[in-house]
Amino acid sequence: MTEFIPPGTRWFDLPSPFAMKRGGVLHGARLAYETWGRLNAARDNAILILTGLSPNAHVAANADNPGPGWWESMLGPGKPIDSTRWFVICANSLGGCKGSTGPASLDPATGDSYRLNFPELAVEDIAQSAHALVRGLGIERLAATIGCSMGGMSALAYSALHPGATRAMVNISGAVQSLPFSIAIRSLQREAIRLDPHWNEGRYDEQSYPEHGMRMARKLGVITYRSSLEWSGRFGRVRLDGEAREGEDPFGLEFQVESYLEGHARRFVRQFDPNCYLYLSRSMDWFDLAEYGHGDADAALRAIAANGALENALSIGVETDILFPLQQQEQIADGLRAGGAKASFAPLPSPQGHDAFLVDIARFGPVVGEFLGGL
Amino acid sequence: MTEFIPPGTRWFDLPSPFAMKRGGVLHGARLAYETWGRLNAARDNAILILTGLSPNAHVAANADNPGPGWWESMLGPGKPIDSTRWFVICANSLGGCKGSTGPASLDPATGDSYRLNFPELAVEDIAQSAHALVRGLGIERLAATIGCSMGGMSALAYSALHPGATRAMVNISGAVQSLPFSIAIRSLQREAIRLDPHWNEGRYDEQSYPEHGMRMARKLGVITYRSSLEWSGRFGRVRLDGEAREGEDPFGLEFQVESYLEGHARRFVRQFDPNCYLYLSRSMDWFDLAEYGHGDADAALRAIAANGALENALSIGVETDILFPLQQQEQIADGLRAGGAKASFAPLPSPQGHDAFLVDIARFGPVVGEFLGGL
Repeated sequence: MTEFIPPGTRWFDLPSPFAMKRGGVLHGARLAYETWGRLNAARDNAILILTGLSPNAHVAANADNPGPGWWESMLGPGKPIDSTRWFVICANSLGGCKGSTGPASLDPATGDSYRLNFPELAVEDIAQSAHALVRGLGIERLAATIGCSMGGMSALAYSALHPGATRAMVNISGAVQSLPFSIAIRSLQREAIRLDPHWNEGRYDEQSYPEHGMRMARKLGVITYRSSLEWSGRFGRVRLDGEAREGEDPFGLEFQVESYLEGHARRFVRQFDPNCYLYLSRSMDWFDLAEYGHGDADAALRAIAANGALENALSIGVETDILFPLQQQEQIADGLRAGGAKASFAPLPSPQGHDAFLVDIARFGPVVGEFLGGL
Repeated sequence: MTEFIPPGTRWFDLPSPFAMKRGGVLHGARLAYETWGRLNAARDNAILILTGLSPNAHVAANADNPGPGWWESMLGPGKPIDSTRWFVICANSLGGCKGSTGPASLDPATGDSYRLNFPELAVEDIAQSAHALVRGLGIERLAATIGCSMGGMSALAYSALHPGATRAMVNISGAVQSLPFSIAIRSLQREAIRLDPHWNEGRYDEQSYPEHGMRMARKLGVITYRSSLEWSGRFGRVRLDGEAREGEDPFGLEFQVESYLEGHARRFVRQFDPNCYLYLSRSMDWFDLAEYGHGDADAALRAIAANGALENALSIGVETDILFPLQQQEQIADGLRAGGAKASFAPLPSPQGHDAFLVDIARFGPVVGEFLGGL
């Protein structure tokens, strides 16, 4: 899986054994990470970015890898996350396949890939491993966490598990728990992979690979990451021209939107490990911040901010998000504010749905930049 | 496929050959239909119900089949569609598998099932065949068409192809054309079926059947037929109890919403012919009322109502519908009104999404009943 790892990646060895929330331990596990900017003498200018399900650690160009990253317009000198002021850290999530230890990694106990022998993954494990990295870099307290999508859950877990470990939080299109609609979508994505005969209970290889299942899962993901509104404006009912059509097949690609999904699927299928996808996907279903509030997620949010443990927070959401709908981001802001944080809620009218933070930099950039500038 | 046909079904022989919109003809084709109430002497009390993708013709109990139908609470003596006043007709859609001729039927030319040799199906073919049935029953002009979901498209096609053939129209969760989001969902459903090795280019049988593909397609359908709001209230994050869980499998059924989808899928998979599903599904992508307005769907709506051809119309939609969103039903009412019909738009706050008309009879019943009562 080395082809998934960007050049310039650094590694951090996690404490060994590393205990997982739902049971089991990892031996010799590590995180792939990158940094931007410089840690100041007071060690109080560090920002940790917690990612969505699939990204690698290469958020943006840096000295080790000048190639553009997945959030290139957001991070760098003079950009909303300004690397001339902040020391920024991002790790590939534990359980992922972009350098950090996950189901596709070698199990030192067997010398073979973990596959389904990897212990069950929780969002809390991602948060705990990131916290170990931050401490390993000599940082006692972060200036801010920035979590997007699944990373928004990781950011909440980070603060719930380590009160006061960050002074501020930017929670983007996040949630305290998954709604049944989102669980249903992800359950279907996993089923598509698991029903592919080539998945073979996780024992696939490059030659016999669950390509069909991954394609279905990715297409369903893209459908729910974007919005009906955006696609109506972008694709309408435009047909592909003759050459791009699949001959006379009445069920072949005919509409532009079908070709768009096909392109997304093709680009993703061999770039992401199917077992890692299953593990990360399920971790989002399981996450429930209410566990830290005696069954009450709002109480857990208040606890995160209690006694000045979290000073500032910004929760951003998008009206067209069907996967993490807007009321979930409002809940985060309301709960943190009720706990004592200076917390604001920024609902944005982006048409791009859940993925808007990746593409609608014109709206997200100023909101994030202003918040960080005010810290 | 005879097990799909309810008892008491009647058959109507379509003109032979029956020409299909996109090319090809059917020989010896027929529609399965049922009726309720009695046609009056003036033959002006007939209502035609045009269904969504999957229903059979058994809308409600009648003399031939006292078993409950799929819209039992809506149709019958004293019900919103009052069979003591109206003579009500419903056919299984052409191309379907509940008695009417479709891809699962025998091709008289070969003696074998049509399968993918069935000609391409258009919504207009469904409307034309229904119109032939209505004329065959001796009815010159309908009192009303009632079309739900795909049937809303069929109702528009019916009026566009035969101006004045109905005095009124109830269009429920319908649309003048499919949005790219809906096309994307349906494209993925079809892909799930077509990628199932047991689909075998349409040459499956009971022993080797694309069960996995149909299951995926159905689950995705159910996800988009309902709404996130409804499921949050209905399922929340409730887990299945131990017995219903799939052992220790971390990817097995665990949340109630997953079990709900599984149940829906199991009930559907062997009750609907996969090739019929593909044909009906694609017909919805292709339908575009704009063809009847020189590329302008609003002009086509106006034309439907022009010169008193359509007198009264009611377009009902639901706020939580993500497949046929509310603005599409508003467009229908606005266009018909602009053409001269007395047309009203009824947006309902049902939480059940696209499928609300099937389950939220408390809201739909009075609206439909009042409209029909005023005719």
